[in-house]
Amino acid sequence: MVVRLGYLGPPGTYSEEAAALYAEEAFEGAAEMVSYASIPAVIEAAWSGEVEEAVVPIENSIEGVVTFTVDMLIYDCDLKMKAEVLVPIHHCLISDGDVEIGRAEVIYSHPQALAQCRAYLRERLPDAEHLASLSTAAAIEDMRASPRPALAISSRRAADLFGATVIETDIEDLINNQTRFVTLARQDGARAGYDRTSICFDFDQDAPGTLYHTLGELQKRDINMIKIESRPDKRSLGHYLFLIDMEGHRAEPRIQAALDGIQTRTALFKILGSYPRAGAGG
Amino acid sequence: MVVRLGYLGPPGTYSEEAAALYAEEAFEGAAEMVSYASIPAVIEAAWSGEVEEAVVPIENSIEGVVTFTVDMLIYDCDLKMKAEVLVPIHHCLISDGDVEIGRAEVIYSHPQALAQCRAYLRERLPDAEHLASLSTAAAIEDMRASPRPALAISSRRAADLFGATVIETDIEDLINNQTRFVTLARQDGARAGYDRTSICFDFDQDAPGTLYHTLGELQKRDINMIKIESRPDKRSLGHYLFLIDMEGHRAEPRIQAALDGIQTRTALFKILGSYPRAGAGG
Repeated sequence: MVVRLGYLGPPGTYSEEAAALYAEEAFEGAAEMVSYASIPAVIEAAWSGEVEEAVVPIENSIEGVVTFTVDMLIYDCDLKMKAEVLVPIHHCLISDGDVEIGRAEVIYSHPQALAQCRAYLRERLPDAEHLASLSTAAAIEDMRASPRPALAISSRRAADLFGATVIETDIEDLINNQTRFVTLARQDGARAGYDRTSICFDFDQDAPGTLYHTLGELQKRDINMIKIESRPDKRSLGHYLFLIDMEGHRAEPRIQAALDGIQTRTALFKILGSYPRAGAGG
Repeated sequence: MVVRLGYLGPPGTYSEEAAALYAEEAFEGAAEMVSYASIPAVIEAAWSGEVEEAVVPIENSIEGVVTFTVDMLIYDCDLKMKAEVLVPIHHCLISDGDVEIGRAEVIYSHPQALAQCRAYLRERLPDAEHLASLSTAAAIEDMRASPRPALAISSRRAADLFGATVIETDIEDLINNQTRFVTLARQDGARAGYDRTSICFDFDQDAPGTLYHTLGELQKRDINMIKIESRPDKRSLGHYLFLIDMEGHRAEPRIQAALDGIQTRTALFKILGSYPRAGAGG
């Protein structure tokens, strides 16, 4: 059976690029790609079994809506993170073929992509009006529908997909701009030897020292913490959730012992999944 | 002299609302509000002295570009956080007066605001096409320029400012949606008794235990950590910065001792400022 893989559409977005990368790596491309209109819709499809797996952004420099993903994993379903996909964000200046850079009166993109290319646009297209699109992929359609000479900022993939012309690549102001995606499934990843485990927890009381002692469960076992984030719980004002990524797989005894130790010190506690780190092996 | 206060325009955005709230609280409204087109432009204006103070988003649920703010505070200037402003985000469905909800064919807003009202829109305006605007304020202009019957999602403040009609308020799907702004100035805030101090640091080596021992400097002095975040350093791949907010003012001996202790354990170390917690006193 061909695996059905849900993703946040439309085709041509960085989300589709992540799904295609994952499909290639995990299934040699033999997956049925199913596009959804929102992150909640993608996750619901995976939880209901409409698709077997789903690729969703978790740290996204464009759409910026990763809170949906994490909140749904914590509260609304029991899907697990199975794999990690890193997509470098390289914006391109794109034309429909007949509009040259000097003639463009307007430029379309998602507001975040416009913001990420601000210095470039000020230098190269100082007089072009910035117009918003719903996604970097939609920017190409908007450019084509524009009554005035228009260009778009989008990805090379979207330009190829829609048959548009790339005028210039890598026009973003900051280097190292990448978006992190995860694959969600009923079960997390098998141990690969270069794994990462993501957990989330909170405390009944936010006394000084509670987090410190909780992190001690990692420290005393020499477990490397890769990422930590506290965030306000949207369902309860003034209350914080903690998200931690650590090196290692939950099947390792040392990691299992640390997770047990953390669980006894916390109120809500959830293992979001263990999965191979992107780019670390294979 | 009237204080000049920079903010991220245009008028009618949540950023302007934050600046107006701060101007009222700090100067009884007697501040000259100066609008800028981007967060870097606002911060540069404050650093060059073009304005005395600047209000910028630091945790923003709409524009999502707070990395600009923190990166500039760390690397590009020595401005300090002087005050904190919390703005509740309550989206409104807005009409130009002659378009009723049932007749609307399109709805304009910033993509993030559209995403935050997804459930409401699916329920009440299932057939309306979603169109992107550069900001929630620009959505009202876009609605007016639309050739098809249109509505907009924006703030009550923007509706009032542009003379548009609020059809319905609080249409966002999640409660407790708020954006945190800070005021930046040459000097941080005087001690108020209900203060918060923000710092940032990194390590030369990311050995297990380095962060744990650093947090011990807070724990052993019973200092409450309000927020912690690790984030990839955009200037150096695979390297992390840590941002911590704690209770207390850097003028308190206990806080000063903890900051000294942290500084000796870290490589880069910067106090971003001490300032009164919003809503905690006054």
